[in-house]
Amino acid sequence: MGTADMIRTNPAGTGVDPELLARVIDALTVCSQTCTACADACLSEDMVADLRRCIRTDLDCADICAATARVLSRQTAYEPEITRAMLEACVQACATCGAECASHAEHHEHCRLCAEACHACEHACRELLAAVA
Amino acid sequence: MGTADMIRTNPAGTGVDPELLARVIDALTVCSQTCTACADACLSEDMVADLRRCIRTDLDCADICAATARVLSRQTAYEPEITRAMLEACVQACATCGAECASHAEHHEHCRLCAEACHACEHACRELLAAVA
Amino acid sequence: MGTADMIRTNPAGTGVDPELLARVIDALTVCSQTCTACADACLSEDMVADLRRCIRTDLDCADICAATARVLSRQTAYEPEITRAMLEACVQACATCGAECASHAEHHEHCRLCAEACHACEHACRELLAAVA
Amino acid sequence: MGTADMIRTNPAGTGVDPELLARVIDALTVCSQTCTACADACLSEDMVADLRRCIRTDLDCADICAATARVLSRQTAYEPEITRAMLEACVQACATCGAECASHAEHHEHCRLCAEACHACEHACRELLAAVA
Repeated sequence: MGTADMIRTNPAGTGVDPELLARVIDALTVCSQTCTACADACLSEDMVADLRRCIRTDLDCADICAATARVLSRQTAYEPEITRAMLEACVQACATCGAECASHAEHHEHCRLCAEACHACEHACRELLAAVA
Repeated sequence: MGTADMIRTNPAGTGVDPELLARVIDALTVCSQTCTACADACLSEDMVADLRRCIRTDLDCADICAATARVLSRQTAYEPEITRAMLEACVQACATCGAECASHAEHHEHCRLCAEACHACEHACRELLAAVA
Repeated sequence: MGTADMIRTNPAGTGVDPELLARVIDALTVCSQTCTACADACLSEDMVADLRRCIRTDLDCADICAATARVLSRQTAYEPEITRAMLEACVQACATCGAECASHAEHHEHCRLCAEACHACEHACRELLAAVA
Repeated sequence: MGTADMIRTNPAGTGVDPELLARVIDALTVCSQTCTACADACLSEDMVADLRRCIRTDLDCADICAATARVLSRQTAYEPEITRAMLEACVQACATCGAECASHAEHHEHCRLCAEACHACEHACRELLAAVA
């Protein structure tokens, strides 16, 4: 898998298992893209006025996951405190967005898929948080 | 595949084949992440001074691919001119970064992998450009 | 002004007037932030369903301007083709978003302010495009 | 000032003083742009090998501040927990990057300016954290 290969060929290292790190980066990029697409799909729904909170948390979650994926993709001069703080923000954003999307999952397939991506990403971030604690 | 499912469940549409659109979005997110990781790996190499141009084009390519992936993830009120302009910028960035990384591929495995991601992304963007021309 | 000072203290250079470059970077960051805020303000309006196109172009314009500001903030191994391609995408995004926001300016002060930011940014990008042609 | 005007014309609100919120958003966007420019200036210095940690923290700080500025620019369906988590990540990133840049301030004017931007941003984020606690 490409993400883990890129981690392994970096002369620097963070002491974190490359497979775990790669899995979290992949979950973050999938979640960020899915949230961006879900925000746009919600915007085109007839009931857009009922999806304001969903769109807003989607946009936040997309931005926070994208920034976290970038921080985790760097291994030079590793700073565990910054990694931990971003993972905690991600857990918060994914939990909030995942719950909001789950509440619309019955009516909108994009919300159901987005809730899944958020939950998977939250779970992956918690796993990495435990490993870098 | 998640990306294509998200495109298909959007009430709006762009007239572009969802499978093609999803393939390009995936190539863009892979390229953006790979370029971010390659810039960092170059930064940790002993010969970092010889990799300045590689780091700079990696950083540009990461930013441009990430922005393009977001634009393509939206289907509401589709504007083909903006899509085309971003795809053209991406082709430019991926071609430049891919050529630079390829020139270091023999010495650095991360550059070899990044050149591959850039070439795949450039090819995908050209395919979509032809479809939205 | 900070932006121009940062450009001047970079050992690399692009041959572009630092004052002009700084003015464009500042216009891009203002436009990106304003479009992000306008998208959110539109989302909270009663008539959100009539503002879908405005929200979508705001989000695109915010992403494209942010990526362009980053590319222009780098001077190492300057590539005029990438700069030009991003400036052209920006002109396209700012013109589209500025026109859309202007059409709501009478009803929404945030759209009026955002149209101003888009027009200023489009103008600045065109000025730089002429200088790097 | 534009940022505060955009906050005030948003139909939604967060209960946070618009002037304070605008000051923090402005500090974040200045810090993000300055860190992007400092990373590139470091990359072009003769002693780039001694500036690896500076470049890496610059890149992290730029990404984290940019994402935080976006989260703070949204007021719809305000979630104080996400705001707080991002402000805490920002404080961490700005403190780390500011200290690193300060250690090179004597030799590189761009590091001196960047340390200032990081310290100002850290201070602004702490002020807002106290207000939303």
